[in-house]
Amino acid sequence: MGVGLDDDLLRDFFGNAEQRAIFDGPQRLQGWLDVERALAQTQAELGIIPAEAAQRISAHCQSDLFDIDKLRQHVSATQHPIVPMVNALEKLVGTEFGQFVHYGATSQDIMDSGQALQLRQSLQGIERDVAAATKAAASLALKHRNTTQVGRTHGQHAVPISFGLKAATWVDELQRLQTRIAESRDRILTVQIFGAAGSMAGYGDRAFEVKAGVASRLGLTEPVAPWHATRDRIAELGSLMALLAGVSERIAAEVIRLQSTEFGELVEPLQPGHIGSSTMPQKRNPHLSEGIVAKARIAQSLSAGLLRNGAHQHERDMGAWAVEWLTVPELMVGSGAMAADLNHLLEGLQVNVERMRRNVGITGGQVNAESLMMILDSSIGRDHAHHLLVELTRSADLRNLNFSEVATADERVASHLSQDQIMKALDPTQYLGFAPEVADRISRALTADAEDRPSISP
Amino acid sequence: MGVGLDDDLLRDFFGNAEQRAIFDGPQRLQGWLDVERALAQTQAELGIIPAEAAQRISAHCQSDLFDIDKLRQHVSATQHPIVPMVNALEKLVGTEFGQFVHYGATSQDIMDSGQALQLRQSLQGIERDVAAATKAAASLALKHRNTTQVGRTHGQHAVPISFGLKAATWVDELQRLQTRIAESRDRILTVQIFGAAGSMAGYGDRAFEVKAGVASRLGLTEPVAPWHATRDRIAELGSLMALLAGVSERIAAEVIRLQSTEFGELVEPLQPGHIGSSTMPQKRNPHLSEGIVAKARIAQSLSAGLLRNGAHQHERDMGAWAVEWLTVPELMVGSGAMAADLNHLLEGLQVNVERMRRNVGITGGQVNAESLMMILDSSIGRDHAHHLLVELTRSADLRNLNFSEVATADERVASHLSQDQIMKALDPTQYLGFAPEVADRISRALTADAEDRPSISP
Amino acid sequence: MGVGLDDDLLRDFFGNAEQRAIFDGPQRLQGWLDVERALAQTQAELGIIPAEAAQRISAHCQSDLFDIDKLRQHVSATQHPIVPMVNALEKLVGTEFGQFVHYGATSQDIMDSGQALQLRQSLQGIERDVAAATKAAASLALKHRNTTQVGRTHGQHAVPISFGLKAATWVDELQRLQTRIAESRDRILTVQIFGAAGSMAGYGDRAFEVKAGVASRLGLTEPVAPWHATRDRIAELGSLMALLAGVSERIAAEVIRLQSTEFGELVEPLQPGHIGSSTMPQKRNPHLSEGIVAKARIAQSLSAGLLRNGAHQHERDMGAWAVEWLTVPELMVGSGAMAADLNHLLEGLQVNVERMRRNVGITGGQVNAESLMMILDSSIGRDHAHHLLVELTRSADLRNLNFSEVATADERVASHLSQDQIMKALDPTQYLGFAPEVADRISRALTADAEDRPSISP
Amino acid sequence: MGVGLDDDLLRDFFGNAEQRAIFDGPQRLQGWLDVERALAQTQAELGIIPAEAAQRISAHCQSDLFDIDKLRQHVSATQHPIVPMVNALEKLVGTEFGQFVHYGATSQDIMDSGQALQLRQSLQGIERDVAAATKAAASLALKHRNTTQVGRTHGQHAVPISFGLKAATWVDELQRLQTRIAESRDRILTVQIFGAAGSMAGYGDRAFEVKAGVASRLGLTEPVAPWHATRDRIAELGSLMALLAGVSERIAAEVIRLQSTEFGELVEPLQPGHIGSSTMPQKRNPHLSEGIVAKARIAQSLSAGLLRNGAHQHERDMGAWAVEWLTVPELMVGSGAMAADLNHLLEGLQVNVERMRRNVGITGGQVNAESLMMILDSSIGRDHAHHLLVELTRSADLRNLNFSEVATADERVASHLSQDQIMKALDPTQYLGFAPEVADRISRALTADAEDRPSISP
Repeated sequence: MGVGLDDDLLRDFFGNAEQRAIFDGPQRLQGWLDVERALAQTQAELGIIPAEAAQRISAHCQSDLFDIDKLRQHVSATQHPIVPMVNALEKLVGTEFGQFVHYGATSQDIMDSGQALQLRQSLQGIERDVAAATKAAASLALKHRNTTQVGRTHGQHAVPISFGLKAATWVDELQRLQTRIAESRDRILTVQIFGAAGSMAGYGDRAFEVKAGVASRLGLTEPVAPWHATRDRIAELGSLMALLAGVSERIAAEVIRLQSTEFGELVEPLQPGHIGSSTMPQKRNPHLSEGIVAKARIAQSLSAGLLRNGAHQHERDMGAWAVEWLTVPELMVGSGAMAADLNHLLEGLQVNVERMRRNVGITGGQVNAESLMMILDSSIGRDHAHHLLVELTRSADLRNLNFSEVATADERVASHLSQDQIMKALDPTQYLGFAPEVADRISRALTADAEDRPSISP
Repeated sequence: MGVGLDDDLLRDFFGNAEQRAIFDGPQRLQGWLDVERALAQTQAELGIIPAEAAQRISAHCQSDLFDIDKLRQHVSATQHPIVPMVNALEKLVGTEFGQFVHYGATSQDIMDSGQALQLRQSLQGIERDVAAATKAAASLALKHRNTTQVGRTHGQHAVPISFGLKAATWVDELQRLQTRIAESRDRILTVQIFGAAGSMAGYGDRAFEVKAGVASRLGLTEPVAPWHATRDRIAELGSLMALLAGVSERIAAEVIRLQSTEFGELVEPLQPGHIGSSTMPQKRNPHLSEGIVAKARIAQSLSAGLLRNGAHQHERDMGAWAVEWLTVPELMVGSGAMAADLNHLLEGLQVNVERMRRNVGITGGQVNAESLMMILDSSIGRDHAHHLLVELTRSADLRNLNFSEVATADERVASHLSQDQIMKALDPTQYLGFAPEVADRISRALTADAEDRPSISP
Repeated sequence: MGVGLDDDLLRDFFGNAEQRAIFDGPQRLQGWLDVERALAQTQAELGIIPAEAAQRISAHCQSDLFDIDKLRQHVSATQHPIVPMVNALEKLVGTEFGQFVHYGATSQDIMDSGQALQLRQSLQGIERDVAAATKAAASLALKHRNTTQVGRTHGQHAVPISFGLKAATWVDELQRLQTRIAESRDRILTVQIFGAAGSMAGYGDRAFEVKAGVASRLGLTEPVAPWHATRDRIAELGSLMALLAGVSERIAAEVIRLQSTEFGELVEPLQPGHIGSSTMPQKRNPHLSEGIVAKARIAQSLSAGLLRNGAHQHERDMGAWAVEWLTVPELMVGSGAMAADLNHLLEGLQVNVERMRRNVGITGGQVNAESLMMILDSSIGRDHAHHLLVELTRSADLRNLNFSEVATADERVASHLSQDQIMKALDPTQYLGFAPEVADRISRALTADAEDRPSISP
Repeated sequence: MGVGLDDDLLRDFFGNAEQRAIFDGPQRLQGWLDVERALAQTQAELGIIPAEAAQRISAHCQSDLFDIDKLRQHVSATQHPIVPMVNALEKLVGTEFGQFVHYGATSQDIMDSGQALQLRQSLQGIERDVAAATKAAASLALKHRNTTQVGRTHGQHAVPISFGLKAATWVDELQRLQTRIAESRDRILTVQIFGAAGSMAGYGDRAFEVKAGVASRLGLTEPVAPWHATRDRIAELGSLMALLAGVSERIAAEVIRLQSTEFGELVEPLQPGHIGSSTMPQKRNPHLSEGIVAKARIAQSLSAGLLRNGAHQHERDMGAWAVEWLTVPELMVGSGAMAADLNHLLEGLQVNVERMRRNVGITGGQVNAESLMMILDSSIGRDHAHHLLVELTRSADLRNLNFSEVATADERVASHLSQDQIMKALDPTQYLGFAPEVADRISRALTADAEDRPSISP
């Protein structure tokens, strides 16, 4: 009976099991309980509550001791997200020590800190997969440093590149993303121990030590100021996921385009068991890449929802805060699956080198018109060269001739260049510029091993 | 083990049972099966497939005959949303007639038409609740047509209004929303029967009749052109939900403000069992309204995700389309709950008439400064009147005096107006303008019964 | 020294002269003055202000009588958008009657009503261009009702369609957009005459008549309730522009794709003077379509900014309202140019029928695999047929053979079908289904004249 | 005749002169010319073009030598943003050396690098103003470390805080923003020198040195890979501005709320000449804060438009790229003005200490209910204490009594606490917790000087 991310039929289009397991109800509950445990242990250590209380509380901070359906019913009836859990935990702990449960805490302390624990686990998975995807892209860049492909701008053939250069831009963007996540991580994974309105009054005289102790036990950053209503940390998380979505969609959409029948240069890894179409037996649909595109766009919308939501009111603002309760899990589950899929796509991407070679030639050398123009440039000046080349390319198109034939047959060209010089100027493999070098520089550090040796010698 | 909308603990903050039940997996499956059944029956009627095939197909188009977990596994393995269902249905129908299942159809025909069936049910619930909320707002408007309240602009006391006028603007906006949904409904609830790329070729020579028949059996609009890649219908749905979110957030945020300790003019209905705060016993937190705000903002983000997603590629584009698979259920479940909550809020809203009266007086009559100015206007001209009133209000503030005392004590005022005239000019209940009349005009038609008689005589 | 929409260099990428002229400063000012004039005339008619006052006010409600730079300086100094204009108008009108300027009005009355006048003009231009674009698309649909083109799904060749069918989906979506604008127009083009906090108190005893009179003079809808803080009308405008952006981006992006070197099926109209690239003489860049894509995405963002902005506070909320002051002109100027460009694109679109024919054949008949499968279906059952066709298409791919050769050489196929039957089953022009018919039905009504006769007989 | 950001009347609500001057047409042009100059000088240094060519080019790279209106007409006619400038520069340079203008460059090299120069200047202004705003907030935090104010959650009075704590959360968020901008700066301010499709082929054999030289001359980061279609740098800029918008809106909206008539705790700095309302003389409208809110929401929409726009196609994609041409200037001009306004707001913010003290008392001590409960806790256990306090606060509300009277009169309380103990427990100034300490820790480092000494001793 699942709906949305938990859809009984389609859920694996929107998320994956690993990330769902981090954010499902029992894990959310366990996150809260981990915080209650760390709080009790710290308070006992500081002599604020009895040691035995902390022991009994710790022993019961396990989600499987709770009846989660009953908890939800209480949540719905009380319209309070946390009190039912606190009450249930008190009951488990028993009369004498139950009162030391949640001591001095406010609901948002528990929920924000618990969420930070979930986010840590989620981000670990995402960082792992982004790193792997980066490495996979680097292998492609290096392997195909010299694989000639047409460079396309405005959808038009422009000049030759190598496929390695294209992959290098993927590496480049993914590397920056890794850097950003590393810079942001500690700002995001932060404990919240500040009490009802941020003054820590409820935590008593040693509140600073309580905060430090809980942060240390949970391995989270200790903040100086309360962030109940200061949500830039969460907005920043949103922006990271939007940037992950940006690069993921860019790569996946490029694969879809280059896998299309007319291009045929890339093929995404075939899943065993994959079905293209129920009625069209010839289809090889890029479902993996399409799934990445869909997840990326969803992530962008959810992320925008976090980035516009910074203006919390007063000291705590549930209207704005509760937006996160749904959005953060949705965003992370989808983004986690997107990162995993991206890695999968890049690791198994099939490159049709032959088709790339064929495609670069379909304009009969027009793709090297810039090259020829720049050579003529020194003889006849840029303006003349440009006008001449415009005339020749238009002429080839109108007469439906191969451009290289038109160029070699033109007297104005021939008066400056030999046939060999012309043909060399029109050879795409001779006009790669620094594409191989850029691919090298970007990728070499990431792919030290021998098997990454370039497949085609320069 | 639920996540997101299905969160084991918090799901009722994001949706409600009614709407979840429309969009959960079994219902999604049933929607598809309803379309397959209607297709088979129509094709049999037209002699395209054997009557017995249609009978056997129809008999098995029931979601509870399917093992939904196994279906999902097949969906994940094949990366195809529909083929596993078609295969399972074929198996149920048996060797002889199985081949007539899904005859001529493409996956998107089934999924779009099935989704239209879910949307019909979902929209019915939303329209019902919006209508009820409108009526509830109208009752408030009429009952409080004369309940004096301060009108606030820029957060500042401006001039008096009645609470009925404020409620009238809610009625007004909700009524327009109802009109829009009614105008859009048939555009949204549309069948899709066009085959692989929209040419209907797979449906054979009588494809138009097939389309008409299926539309008629399902009670959906019959479109002329394929809309596999033409998604304005879904974007329009998104815009309606964004408009619903807009009015819902406006009302809920106003309740939160007016329920705040300093205002105290409105109190949202107390749920039996509601808990304000675990640590602050005095709190009466507007959880219902806060939940509406959160749902509204989420709906706005999801809606923006649909409105930017119109540029589907070629004849069908799964990358863009699959955005809808998650977004549409999320949007409708959240919006459905939001509409229900809005109705609940308006039906049970408590109005503190006494506090409204007190608040309008806290500036000591400054709220009627415009009134006094307009009366003086005719004696001393607008500019003089304006300058005089600025001086008097500033003077009252600086000397911490009641404005009415300052005004009555001022000789320049007194030389034109008697004390009685001044006091009347400063009486908020005498400066309601046409607030009661607007409340009447907007609401009267909606609330015919006797109990809506105004509580305070004019 | 222009920035943004008024950029000295690039402004024509973002807007056009017609729409800029509707929303520039002098026109904004004139809109306000038109409202002040209509107000004064109505109030004089009702005997609220002297007839001579109205005459003098009317005579001075011309933007060229105002020093707009000085006005702006006053606006900046006072942080008030309207008072400087009111003061300047009073001065022009003179001592005796100046006090009757802006009588009873609040700033937002003037600004909202004035904006409605600008919107009316802007929408007229947009409706004109959308209607023309629809007609142009209908001409394409009809002319190319039978022009065979490959239908592509997931970026892959699927089954044949006609280009007319693709154009028909454009007509279809544009027609619905026209309907929606027509339905919404009166809700959007609404007068605002409600005074400081919506009670109309400042307008005196005949406020309802004042409102009716101003609405009638300006030709705007007369609302029942104040909409100072009820902004669904503006959000609805945003949603219409987002829907316009959706269809515009869909068409433009399709042209960019189909104009790409590998496809070559469409070419956008060449501007005289257009330059493709400074360095690559062969380029034919689809700048017109790219400009539409850019404008569409900008419009989507601006529209989302209006659709999330509904929760105005209390009776008037300048923080939320001022979002519109910039967003509405930006959105309309960009959308107006987008609609004009779309029409231009469709009217001049060049269709390369020959290239379409060639492209549909590049898979050697695989695009008709569904057709062959459905014929074999009746002989050997669907499952067998499907498996056989998967085998044959894979075989053709692996052996790099033409699919039709593989199919005709296969004994299992040959045992059921003659060579002629096979070749006919694999002829794309024989498998257009109802594509021509759909194109006809959608377009016929729009294009009555003779020249739209189909170019290729069925 | 200005529209949008350049609106003749309202432009100072959307931007400011400093930022407009960075992004207007002449500056955009100058940015391009600065890049052309640096390119020519570098190429001359490397012996790629003649030294005299570089001299002549450099001498003419001044925007005031160009007829900007004519340039724009050429841009519109050619639909090309750069070629008209290149042609005009060639003409200025003269026949012999004109051909060395723009040597090997692609349009996007010039435009991206030029934009980076504008962004550097814009970000400098923003960083300056954010730093100043942070310092102003820190002064408030320190000065009001002990100024008792009520802490509000869910809009309800919760427990006391100090105003210094609230300001400390502003400092905290602004500091993190400064850190993020510093981390991102070099990623954003990056040169683009990669030629037509990123291979650098057009720049010849020493392309890497050309790139390094231009980067060094312009003081921009030198990238390894082309970023023509890799736009995470720009998306990251968008996310920074969204985060700036988040904190700006949070602070401004809080000021609007706390300046509202019922609260009266803060007053934004009065502009000399500021006008509240044309008709309501008593109004003190928070126009400065409202302008910040509006700019923040616009910035959020524009930023979302950049964060969704990452999926550029192939090697360069003008449809997606041109979104930036308008969005980046709009975003920066608005954000720059927002940062300046925020600083202005914080530097001049008036704090009504007396009103804060009065407001914290309006619940008759209920705001300290948590304090009393925690003291009773140790005597009667938490559950009993909680129930007792709920009863007492409800009782005070129902009987309309001061809570402290009810509490002191209750025997159950009195049996455990003396009257003095109760009154102390209900004294807000005694329940500030660590609010002053947090304010200190956050702010001390930023505000070293003597005048920031706390105004009220602890």
